[in-house]
Amino acid sequence: MAIRVTIWNEFRHEQQNEQVKEVYPDGIHEALASYLNKCKGITTKTATLDEPEHGLTDDVLENTDVLIWWGHTAHHEVDDAVVEKVYNRVHAGMGLIALHSAHFSKIFKKLMGTTCDLKWREANDKERLWVTAPNHPIAQGIGDYIELPAEEMYGEFFDIPQPDHVIFTSWFTGGEVFRSGCTFTRSNGKIFYFRPGHETYPTYYNEEILHVIENGVRWAAPVDWKDFNFGNAQPLEDM
Amino acid sequence: MAIRVTIWNEFRHEQQNEQVKEVYPDGIHEALASYLNKCKGITTKTATLDEPEHGLTDDVLENTDVLIWWGHTAHHEVDDAVVEKVYNRVHAGMGLIALHSAHFSKIFKKLMGTTCDLKWREANDKERLWVTAPNHPIAQGIGDYIELPAEEMYGEFFDIPQPDHVIFTSWFTGGEVFRSGCTFTRSNGKIFYFRPGHETYPTYYNEEILHVIENGVRWAAPVDWKDFNFGNAQPLEDM
Amino acid sequence: MAIRVTIWNEFRHEQQNEQVKEVYPDGIHEALASYLNKCKGITTKTATLDEPEHGLTDDVLENTDVLIWWGHTAHHEVDDAVVEKVYNRVHAGMGLIALHSAHFSKIFKKLMGTTCDLKWREANDKERLWVTAPNHPIAQGIGDYIELPAEEMYGEFFDIPQPDHVIFTSWFTGGEVFRSGCTFTRSNGKIFYFRPGHETYPTYYNEEILHVIENGVRWAAPVDWKDFNFGNAQPLEDM
Amino acid sequence: MAIRVTIWNEFRHEQQNEQVKEVYPDGIHEALASYLNKCKGITTKTATLDEPEHGLTDDVLENTDVLIWWGHTAHHEVDDAVVEKVYNRVHAGMGLIALHSAHFSKIFKKLMGTTCDLKWREANDKERLWVTAPNHPIAQGIGDYIELPAEEMYGEFFDIPQPDHVIFTSWFTGGEVFRSGCTFTRSNGKIFYFRPGHETYPTYYNEEILHVIENGVRWAAPVDWKDFNFGNAQPLEDM
Repeated sequence: MAIRVTIWNEFRHEQQNEQVKEVYPDGIHEALASYLNKCKGITTKTATLDEPEHGLTDDVLENTDVLIWWGHTAHHEVDDAVVEKVYNRVHAGMGLIALHSAHFSKIFKKLMGTTCDLKWREANDKERLWVTAPNHPIAQGIGDYIELPAEEMYGEFFDIPQPDHVIFTSWFTGGEVFRSGCTFTRSNGKIFYFRPGHETYPTYYNEEILHVIENGVRWAAPVDWKDFNFGNAQPLEDM
Repeated sequence: MAIRVTIWNEFRHEQQNEQVKEVYPDGIHEALASYLNKCKGITTKTATLDEPEHGLTDDVLENTDVLIWWGHTAHHEVDDAVVEKVYNRVHAGMGLIALHSAHFSKIFKKLMGTTCDLKWREANDKERLWVTAPNHPIAQGIGDYIELPAEEMYGEFFDIPQPDHVIFTSWFTGGEVFRSGCTFTRSNGKIFYFRPGHETYPTYYNEEILHVIENGVRWAAPVDWKDFNFGNAQPLEDM
Repeated sequence: MAIRVTIWNEFRHEQQNEQVKEVYPDGIHEALASYLNKCKGITTKTATLDEPEHGLTDDVLENTDVLIWWGHTAHHEVDDAVVEKVYNRVHAGMGLIALHSAHFSKIFKKLMGTTCDLKWREANDKERLWVTAPNHPIAQGIGDYIELPAEEMYGEFFDIPQPDHVIFTSWFTGGEVFRSGCTFTRSNGKIFYFRPGHETYPTYYNEEILHVIENGVRWAAPVDWKDFNFGNAQPLEDM
Repeated sequence: MAIRVTIWNEFRHEQQNEQVKEVYPDGIHEALASYLNKCKGITTKTATLDEPEHGLTDDVLENTDVLIWWGHTAHHEVDDAVVEKVYNRVHAGMGLIALHSAHFSKIFKKLMGTTCDLKWREANDKERLWVTAPNHPIAQGIGDYIELPAEEMYGEFFDIPQPDHVIFTSWFTGGEVFRSGCTFTRSNGKIFYFRPGHETYPTYYNEEILHVIENGVRWAAPVDWKDFNFGNAQPLEDM
């Protein structure tokens, strides 16, 4: 059965900023969907901030195996009730891929329990993402590193809990490093934070970046939708 | 300089339930304080739910290095504004020791990002806490295990993120196991979850349990109150 | 392409001990092979101690994606040169599944860097393996726990490095606990230690245990046979 | 009681190479000892390759709490019997601080179970060590980063098992990153790998680098010299 991916995008920059519109005329979500739709065993839907319920109705969430999230300028406009539903769905087993500035989204911060703050700079730094966990499924097919000619810089200290695995660590021209590919487990859900993708750069057309996102989708797809047995429990042994 | 510990206790069972009052006539917080006050380099204060601001004023929090938390029946009565202050103080570097049913406290759940749910049974199970990280400072002075003749059972799956270290794993008569001593890092703060201590048992008079809590206090005490430099950053190299 | 599994077995108990022979007339390796051969996308070979080069020739290793290892009484008879070859092959990407008393095999100890010692008892303890990482691929299809009516006991402290993930934690009748399912990464190779399977019990006919081993095989299969670029490196930037 | 540190140095470069002799006229071991001897609660001894038993007699090891190791050109000359003794002593609880090219020492590789290989370049790269675990005791007193004007480059992939904690991540002028401060646990012993310190640079006179090594010594000092109870175990419960 195919992995059902929903790509959520704030979709404001692309409509309000000419420079961004030129790079992503149909929005970041469509750029990602267009790649993922060609991947075997993956189907996609999209959802955006300005749709009713931000496009994340109960029905949509119940039919999503992996949710991709891109947001930046309007994190505070995302309704707390929707965030709560996404939070519960991750706990139930839905994978979450948080891209770039989604580090500051309500849903990512709520799942992390930290500020998720960091250093940043918009100055066309070159970024080189070094693979620091080469045998992780998310690094499949990637060599020593991925190089991006220009990107926004994110720098340490990145205030996240210790990741389960750090798949990529970035080098930036200006002198900084960053844990750019991090995995986490929350309840039954898998989370992959992946740094690149500032809206003014064509990063989501880079074949290696897209391949990593595809790997992330396959890795984050739920193993089981497990029903946990919590609460009062009878003894399993004579007492 | 001494480690300044604040022991927070819900302090309801001890006032409302005769059985509990008999075990902890002055409250669980006083039992803990009475031990910790004898430990070199540690000073304690106490705070309880029914005090104004639950006893956790700005002044108290600003003068707390490690906060110990015991709550059970009234988690929902803890004011969200106080939880937010404690949350921020942990991020700034304050240690947090969450005891027993504090697994379901607002502050612990908010820091974990999971449901923190588990199995439980009040049936006088014997508990044996095996040391699974013997060289961790929290296990200092403890042999193969600590044995408690009767306790409430907590059983897996314990819905927490992967701990940094699992110091104790419990065996229960009824057939269950539990990760009973877990450490986490959140921003600049250290967190130690320690399972034992149901209100109807004299667990907080057990010398080994108290010694572990003392170890936990010393480990969770802040290394530095670091000021993180987040936000827009100038390049450190010529670009 | 199918995952190529080689099942290595010491194969001494089954030939020398009537009780064991009765349980595994063709050897533990054949019991495992008979299950795995029915699994889609998996092919198996077997190899045993008393074959030339212990059945692990260069050709066999070069055509093995995942090596399963069962040994007990003759760890010291395994040739160091063969151990070295297996060690190098794990580094190159071959998965390793170390079963039961393989905790004391030369290859497992060499990969761990610790004594791998533990407590043990042959006394028909009941074992209950609780799932402590439910969303890990190795726990796919398993409920709260697996129960084995009688097994050898292994108890903590189990002297291993901190595992990447602890998938199972066992409860034993006699009062002990044990980290029974542990994953590790070494260079490009994935390692799964799985506790159950003393030679006198029919554990390797238990459908859930076999399913976990199958899951382990799929998880440990190499993602890539990566060629690492080590050594002297030219700068990637102008200096 | 003071922490008893033994500083082991290969001590060849300093005697054979004029450039190195100029930087460390009495050897790297004496530069480190001279700093550590001024630290409260720390006493030091030194030992070098060309002493009998490389200066690491049973008596020396039995009176060492933390061993610092610097080696480079003569790893293969270190006697396997001495390596075995150091290995056993780490398991018993002795801390080990492996500096710079000690990544390729016999003792470090044996404790890791991997190749410990990496990329390198001697080209006066600037190194900036970013703190990625600010509340770890080893980062105490250090700001966002430590800067070294010129050092040998070490680059990823660094073939080590997943560290317990990554305290520092380095940026290099030439475009590489490296996990420069890593902690590991092996049996009862704590291990800290710390990257900087190529013999041609005055890195071991840098106050921040020395402070990190001091922090490392305090962190790696044994909590307890625990006697593990391994082997056949009587049940703790009626069976």
